[in-house]
Amino acid sequence: MTDPFMALLGIEVRSSGRGQARLSARVSPQHLNIHGSCHGGFLYSLADAAFALASNSHGVAAVALSTHMEYFKPVREGEVLEALATEENLGRRTATYRIEIRRDTELVALFTGTVFRKEVDSR
Amino acid sequence: MTDPFMALLGIEVRSSGRGQARLSARVSPQHLNIHGSCHGGFLYSLADAAFALASNSHGVAAVALSTHMEYFKPVREGEVLEALATEENLGRRTATYRIEIRRDTELVALFTGTVFRKEVDSR
Amino acid sequence: MTDPFMALLGIEVRSSGRGQARLSARVSPQHLNIHGSCHGGFLYSLADAAFALASNSHGVAAVALSTHMEYFKPVREGEVLEALATEENLGRRTATYRIEIRRDTELVALFTGTVFRKEVDSR
Amino acid sequence: MTDPFMALLGIEVRSSGRGQARLSARVSPQHLNIHGSCHGGFLYSLADAAFALASNSHGVAAVALSTHMEYFKPVREGEVLEALATEENLGRRTATYRIEIRRDTELVALFTGTVFRKEVDSR
Repeated sequence: MTDPFMALLGIEVRSSGRGQARLSARVSPQHLNIHGSCHGGFLYSLADAAFALASNSHGVAAVALSTHMEYFKPVREGEVLEALATEENLGRRTATYRIEIRRDTELVALFTGTVFRKEVDSR
Repeated sequence: MTDPFMALLGIEVRSSGRGQARLSARVSPQHLNIHGSCHGGFLYSLADAAFALASNSHGVAAVALSTHMEYFKPVREGEVLEALATEENLGRRTATYRIEIRRDTELVALFTGTVFRKEVDSR
Repeated sequence: MTDPFMALLGIEVRSSGRGQARLSARVSPQHLNIHGSCHGGFLYSLADAAFALASNSHGVAAVALSTHMEYFKPVREGEVLEALATEENLGRRTATYRIEIRRDTELVALFTGTVFRKEVDSR
Repeated sequence: MTDPFMALLGIEVRSSGRGQARLSARVSPQHLNIHGSCHGGFLYSLADAAFALASNSHGVAAVALSTHMEYFKPVREGEVLEALATEENLGRRTATYRIEIRRDTELVALFTGTVFRKEVDSR
């Protein structure tokens, strides 16, 4: 349920299930950018980890094809963020997920991602 | 030219200029995902760091609004990647950049990002 | 509430309000693609029309910066589609919208779009 | 090489080949939006038509999965636009294309799209 990159960034899994996942992380000094706020790559990586967990929850290996990130609010050191993944569409060979990055109830960034599902017809 | 998150991920600046940047990083064991290949968040963060450098090269603070990533090839531990940022469009209040993630000459991922340019009329 | 391009495509406004809009259209023979199903540009245009209406609902001129479309299901001639726009984020200079393209209750495509809000400080 | 929706919008094919296409269209009064400039859905549809042609040029049916559009400049009635499609990546099951919308040499919008290639293993 966790991997080396999540460990490096301090990302923790709160819950997961079929087509969904909830992860959290605290923004630490090493996650900041040149402006002194949380790096966009850190926010994305938190969303991407939730995306990977949700999309690989059906017993079929899923790999990211295309993703999209919208940044709404700056995030500061010390703040705790949650990533909430839900399934928008589950097809045979592709699937799409929505991941909200929240600070308490506030939506600070929004990720959409589509995977290719690899092993459906492998034999 | 570098920031704490780039340092955490081992991302180095090779060159930079007006509207452009070239960065590199080696994929290490702590950058891997659950499938044992390079995490999508690491590839994105490398692209995003080049995007930040190129978009902040004009003396105007630029913050990411919307980004897009396409993943083409899996990347393995030990491989060295380059991120090459070029400017697609430079407007007064927004600008768009293309960042290629390359392994030697091979394009392994493609990032497109748009910034809001903050301080044009600040006073 | 309507414009020439919407008229050309047969797009009708069902309702609209602050940050939201609901539009509909029937897929006609002239909206088909080379595979005989509804053209992706038609589905996008329906979503984009809802995006324009919702984003221009606050008394500030809004122009599209960046949009994203995910296609889930093929759509056939004669089917009636709805576009439902909701506001994901409303900032001073930018705002982001989610537009669902539905066939009855089924989500057939998903659009995300970000606008630049032009006239906030115009004087 | 053309389809009903292209005919409705006045989109013409200038040239096409393996993984590429060049299309053109003139912006007419019925293509305008509420602001009196060219509708974003028209610009997208022109790009999408080039994307469809380029992605279906390899003898394998390709359907759009995920697309992305960046709008750079307003376009006016009477202007002639070109869409130039090139292949960013060609994989076995997916492929990605870049489509530039140009007014003479000026880049007015940029589209990126990924297809699923359907019939590779169909039999």
